[in-house]
Amino acid sequence: MSQAAEGYNVAVVGATGAVGQKMIETLEDRNFPVKTLTLLASKRSAGKKVSYKGQEVEIQEALPESFEGIDIALFSAGGSISKQLAPEAVKRGAVVIDNTSAFRMDENVPLVVPEVNEEDIKNHNGIIANPNCSTIQMVAALQPIRKAYGLNRVIVSTYQAVSGSGTVAVDELKAQSKDFLEGKEMKAEILPVKGDKNHYPIAFNALPQIDLFQDNGYTFEEMKMINETKKIMHLPELPVAATCVRLPFFTSHAESIYIEVENDGVSVEQIKALFQDAPGVVLEDDPASQKYPTPLSAEGKRDVFVGRIRRDLDNSKGFHMWVVSDNLLKGAAWNSVQIAERIVANNWLK
Amino acid sequence: MSQAAEGYNVAVVGATGAVGQKMIETLEDRNFPVKTLTLLASKRSAGKKVSYKGQEVEIQEALPESFEGIDIALFSAGGSISKQLAPEAVKRGAVVIDNTSAFRMDENVPLVVPEVNEEDIKNHNGIIANPNCSTIQMVAALQPIRKAYGLNRVIVSTYQAVSGSGTVAVDELKAQSKDFLEGKEMKAEILPVKGDKNHYPIAFNALPQIDLFQDNGYTFEEMKMINETKKIMHLPELPVAATCVRLPFFTSHAESIYIEVENDGVSVEQIKALFQDAPGVVLEDDPASQKYPTPLSAEGKRDVFVGRIRRDLDNSKGFHMWVVSDNLLKGAAWNSVQIAERIVANNWLK
Repeated sequence: MSQAAEGYNVAVVGATGAVGQKMIETLEDRNFPVKTLTLLASKRSAGKKVSYKGQEVEIQEALPESFEGIDIALFSAGGSISKQLAPEAVKRGAVVIDNTSAFRMDENVPLVVPEVNEEDIKNHNGIIANPNCSTIQMVAALQPIRKAYGLNRVIVSTYQAVSGSGTVAVDELKAQSKDFLEGKEMKAEILPVKGDKNHYPIAFNALPQIDLFQDNGYTFEEMKMINETKKIMHLPELPVAATCVRLPFFTSHAESIYIEVENDGVSVEQIKALFQDAPGVVLEDDPASQKYPTPLSAEGKRDVFVGRIRRDLDNSKGFHMWVVSDNLLKGAAWNSVQIAERIVANNWLK
Repeated sequence: MSQAAEGYNVAVVGATGAVGQKMIETLEDRNFPVKTLTLLASKRSAGKKVSYKGQEVEIQEALPESFEGIDIALFSAGGSISKQLAPEAVKRGAVVIDNTSAFRMDENVPLVVPEVNEEDIKNHNGIIANPNCSTIQMVAALQPIRKAYGLNRVIVSTYQAVSGSGTVAVDELKAQSKDFLEGKEMKAEILPVKGDKNHYPIAFNALPQIDLFQDNGYTFEEMKMINETKKIMHLPELPVAATCVRLPFFTSHAESIYIEVENDGVSVEQIKALFQDAPGVVLEDDPASQKYPTPLSAEGKRDVFVGRIRRDLDNSKGFHMWVVSDNLLKGAAWNSVQIAERIVANNWLK
């Protein structure tokens, strides 16, 4: 019996988090060939139970020895946990798919969005990095255009959901919204960045800071979008600019993207046609019937949705578009499970 | 005794609306030299009373004869009312400051943001147009940069408050937010555009449609930003692109703006220095202390706030910035009253 038929020993690290929960759900929804499922988290969460395919699975404390016998480990418990435990998992023979920023820019670690650079997986040395949520949906949408007409430039402004900052941020938005509507003072303790000095209300507001500021005045989130896009697309010289903004909604990131293609004379209709059979990308674009994706309409779906495609009025190679996807699914859990599926399908476990 | 000392007969048309209310408050806050205040609205609102400087002023139905003896009429009751009644007011000797889109692109009507093109006021033929809210704050922020270093290009993505669609939209966001938090179905009847076919929830969502779609795939709001910017700045050839998005907050619009200046070698510090004494614009920009404007921080203030200024990483003439202002004040009521102040100060009533 092949391993594929028998199934794989899968571990999820960070099983109680917003993304970890979605990873477990996605493994189930996709009917991933799981032989055993090991759920790992901090000592604090050990003993809690999570449902998988109708069975209760007990969460264990994540330790180096937890990875004995594991084939595939999906990590989403923060960068420091990944830095500490991913090498331990690899040492014990597991392939790690890591959803943190710990290894993304490591040149020995492939950074993968299957619709864009699936082939990079096979060069892995035990760890494959899952890109930043806002990067994934952008490159998935840009790849068909780049393949057909080339790509000279990207400028993106994001509209990002609070769940990207975890369940504590989701709870904060709920509590603040309720307090505001009841005329009470809003308490801000989590956003924009839990570990930063100042916190501001997100309810009925917009915060132009996601992750910490870097020395160049960009936030780390913005630099992730810039650097990861170049790495995933194998376009190290592509000019990419990003402004990342946190907004008061729970799920899905939206992006207003301006691009310039290489070819001249490309029409909006040609761009739209590319998405007819682009893997993982769905065109929702009809101004006449007010059809365009929104965070609420994309929630719970694995696809990346593209709308509002229109030509720049001054630059014949310029196009604007609006890209939306569920940040916990394609932006995190689904892209990770999808990498696992491609590993299994291509026999890239090693 | 001069008219300035005696004061002016001022009318506000649309006195019960979100902007009309702010116009009345702003006239009071600024201690505008009002001799008599006439409040006009639809027949439906006639008889209601509004407080001005401690007195109750009764609202009257807006009719052509309402403008007899009026010196300055501030209109904000929708484009069709302005088209119908502004010429009647002018015929009776009033100067109209119109906050609708009815006359903005009329070549005989100055379109004015005092910080940018105050001098255009004196060419008026009875009507001066107040620009679109999202346009006003952008051009106010760009003008100091344009004056110092020239301007070659503008690409903006907006983050706009629901109050731009009136008090019905404010009520809708409140009701939907409450329903969502209580686990109830949200009712969508107003946004994105009251008069359009489909309505979508705005609470905990983002809608990439403000105003009706035009034949070119842009919304009317986007075309207003594009065309009005060129007119106000007297730069008919300036490339301007806009993506306008409605978001779940009540007050203030925010904008992620990318610009390219004409001069080479301009530093972020030089751009920031321009705002030290730019009229009506306040720099709130210090990443080290997480200082940047937000919709909540700008609410109730008349200034335009600029933050997150940084150089594009690929184009040495490119800069990104984040501009926020109260859409009902600088975006509407305050800019209108400010035009009235400039008219009075310069004796441009005619």
